[in-house]
Amino acid sequence: MQYVKIKDAIVEQIDSGMLTPRQKLPSERKLAESFDTTRVTLREALSLLEAEGKIYREDRRGWFISPEPLVYDPTQALNFTNMALIQNRVPETQLISAKSMLANKQAATLLNLAPFADVYRFDRVRYLDGRPVVFVTNFVRPDIFPKLLSHDLSLSLTELYREHYGQVYQRIRYRVSTTSLLGNIAQSLRAATGSPATLVERVNFNNKGELISCDLEYWRHDAMCIESVAELTTENC
Amino acid sequence: MQYVKIKDAIVEQIDSGMLTPRQKLPSERKLAESFDTTRVTLREALSLLEAEGKIYREDRRGWFISPEPLVYDPTQALNFTNMALIQNRVPETQLISAKSMLANKQAATLLNLAPFADVYRFDRVRYLDGRPVVFVTNFVRPDIFPKLLSHDLSLSLTELYREHYGQVYQRIRYRVSTTSLLGNIAQSLRAATGSPATLVERVNFNNKGELISCDLEYWRHDAMCIESVAELTTENC
Repeated sequence: MQYVKIKDAIVEQIDSGMLTPRQKLPSERKLAESFDTTRVTLREALSLLEAEGKIYREDRRGWFISPEPLVYDPTQALNFTNMALIQNRVPETQLISAKSMLANKQAATLLNLAPFADVYRFDRVRYLDGRPVVFVTNFVRPDIFPKLLSHDLSLSLTELYREHYGQVYQRIRYRVSTTSLLGNIAQSLRAATGSPATLVERVNFNNKGELISCDLEYWRHDAMCIESVAELTTENC
Repeated sequence: MQYVKIKDAIVEQIDSGMLTPRQKLPSERKLAESFDTTRVTLREALSLLEAEGKIYREDRRGWFISPEPLVYDPTQALNFTNMALIQNRVPETQLISAKSMLANKQAATLLNLAPFADVYRFDRVRYLDGRPVVFVTNFVRPDIFPKLLSHDLSLSLTELYREHYGQVYQRIRYRVSTTSLLGNIAQSLRAATGSPATLVERVNFNNKGELISCDLEYWRHDAMCIESVAELTTENC
């Protein structure tokens, strides 16, 4: 199929270094001309490249070559900032909102709360090298973290939890699935509505085994990959 | 946006049980009529539902409601068959091909082999409840598994490795990323070219720390989700 050939040609230019990370692709019209093809076929090729995480779209700004993904190891106790720094990336976090609210269905389910229980909610966008890559919503139990909103929330939440509340994540249950970006999440990540995304849902327990908070992380799917090592104990593999 | 509303309406019908797993959706023409919308808008709604793993397409057969995903815990030493059985699913494996070949670039990189080294390659399709969900390519080191092709390869490879070669997976390094289905892999999974997929790359080590094989698993992305628990040892989370 022609669009697979066009895709392969662009992948070759990326792999050979002729197209470099964060570089903007020419307009769709120019690309279609240079491959002597139609806009429809070209878009199919671009959409394959997007699915494979080779390029990404910024709303109204066009297509760009994806940087290397951030390697995310869910079994390591590293927060986003340290994970990025170790990998020589420049992290940044923007607090979008922090409020006390009644738990919605999702928060009540994840935190195992009674309907209409109080909960803190934080929305943050995290950047890598200036590019927004993940929209994070945290739901936090107010009985474990009283008066949380009176602190400086632009800093690391995990450090705040440890220093002011003596709370440390001891056990994390996580779930990784695929979804798409919609509404204000897409907007905050400068992504087109419907762009592919990886959703990481985490539920965090303290050293007493109490469920203290949960995170919903909507990642631009090309910006992250999961890598880890499992040591097996049974022989039943 | 209208197509988001149509998507939400269909999600509601799934969540309420009016549309059940594996049920076929009406034709795109009929759906467009019933939502009083255009085919273009309807397709945008379907494509969001596909991205979210709520529906899947079988090539030339139409759209279906996705069954519950198989829960995959990469830190557990369970093979596909046992993983499926524990979750009350019916697993099946089809051997597509088994051969000895010269390592291609991918196999050489993953297995850390010299260029043009010999390697065994197995291609298999795995089914859940009759639906093809993952295309698996294994590359295996012949010096560790001499005369591997003379065995019955339709059975579990991990059991064969243990019983005939005394080889057990002790450590697995894995990487999870997003990609799309193309060519014969798409065909084997009855998926349209370009359908979203989750790629799991695993490198397997035996109890002496030797790298013995690697797997490339192309999952229909709605058919699987990763779930695990991490116990944290540092306080730096």
